[in-house]
Amino acid sequence: MEVIVPFSTDRPKSRLSDVLSPDERRDFARAMLDDVLDAVAAADGEPRVLATDPVDVDSPVTVDDRPLTDAVNAALDARLGADSERGGAVEPVAVVMADLALATPAALDRLFEAGRDADVAVAPGRGGGTNAFVASHPEFQVDYHGASYLDHREIASEIDAAFRTVDSHRLGTDVDEPADLAEVLIHAEGRAAAWLREAGFALDAEEGRVAAVRE
Amino acid sequence: MEVIVPFSTDRPKSRLSDVLSPDERRDFARAMLDDVLDAVAAADGEPRVLATDPVDVDSPVTVDDRPLTDAVNAALDARLGADSERGGAVEPVAVVMADLALATPAALDRLFEAGRDADVAVAPGRGGGTNAFVASHPEFQVDYHGASYLDHREIASEIDAAFRTVDSHRLGTDVDEPADLAEVLIHAEGRAAAWLREAGFALDAEEGRVAAVRE
Repeated sequence: MEVIVPFSTDRPKSRLSDVLSPDERRDFARAMLDDVLDAVAAADGEPRVLATDPVDVDSPVTVDDRPLTDAVNAALDARLGADSERGGAVEPVAVVMADLALATPAALDRLFEAGRDADVAVAPGRGGGTNAFVASHPEFQVDYHGASYLDHREIASEIDAAFRTVDSHRLGTDVDEPADLAEVLIHAEGRAAAWLREAGFALDAEEGRVAAVRE
Repeated sequence: MEVIVPFSTDRPKSRLSDVLSPDERRDFARAMLDDVLDAVAAADGEPRVLATDPVDVDSPVTVDDRPLTDAVNAALDARLGADSERGGAVEPVAVVMADLALATPAALDRLFEAGRDADVAVAPGRGGGTNAFVASHPEFQVDYHGASYLDHREIASEIDAAFRTVDSHRLGTDVDEPADLAEVLIHAEGRAAAWLREAGFALDAEEGRVAAVRE
């Protein structure tokens, strides 16, 4: 299954600016991207980075500097629309965000499996985002604004696409805010977690809820 | 499988005090408890409430006013320890927190299944808590302080208990803070979600991340 991994090279991870410098945010975002690409490959997915600028990775890269929603819809059209017009079976395509530092092959397997059973399968993020999905319905389009998980469920309903939700803490955890860094330290074992430890972050349970603090 | 549901009647949900009055927090906590008990029963679990004071529910209730860790360890001893001493097979026992308003029978099925395959299966909460677990190892004990998910993994390792993590956004979402209320409105369909809507809460995506706001 082709797995599109959108990646923004422009001011990545700005909501981490209280705890990481611009250079650090760029490096950390890149470590997370590499972890996601590894997990996709280990789950037998074929990763393709959809980047706003050229990026030097081992996987194929498509550069599209439009906003996320437009770029993903163009990529979906290019796959699902083309398959459908040829009249053949539509191969499912996945879109997995580049900041899912907790993603494992097992979690992605569950996503891909759900996407083979349903026309649209979504792993919602905290706050109702769409962290990862698989679609095989040629009319499915995304709209990443707001509570996109609910919007995508509604869009699937409008086009009579069978919809499934993938219940995963790992895929539901997009790393955007300082509180998310604790999740990386607790659950991840790849480059992003190593990068955080190297940068001096450690878990701290002093104030009730566990947080990632920097020494 | 017996499923112990700890429930505190003493100042419940204090971290929601910015958005709910004491009476409202009590009612909302009770709505979540009822949702959890329903989901457990629908997943063929046998719920038993472990409460700090008597509580009027359809399920059996054990009253134990000690701190959570002590009360749960006493309950584990009473089941796993007794089974083990009789020399028979140890029946797994589950402990599921009363504020998992997103819990569904399907999510609990996955927990119970993991608990049949391993000696200890834990569904971690955000921040490294232990939102739900199943144990069948007679020496397993809990310690809910701090990043208890990591502690419980360590405890399982020390007693040579096979450990499994259950990757679930639903079981990973304990409803403690105002930000968690959005998860209830997005994903839950039971009494807790209805209670929030009745109290005037609705989703708001105005400020980027989706939040539950009160009209």
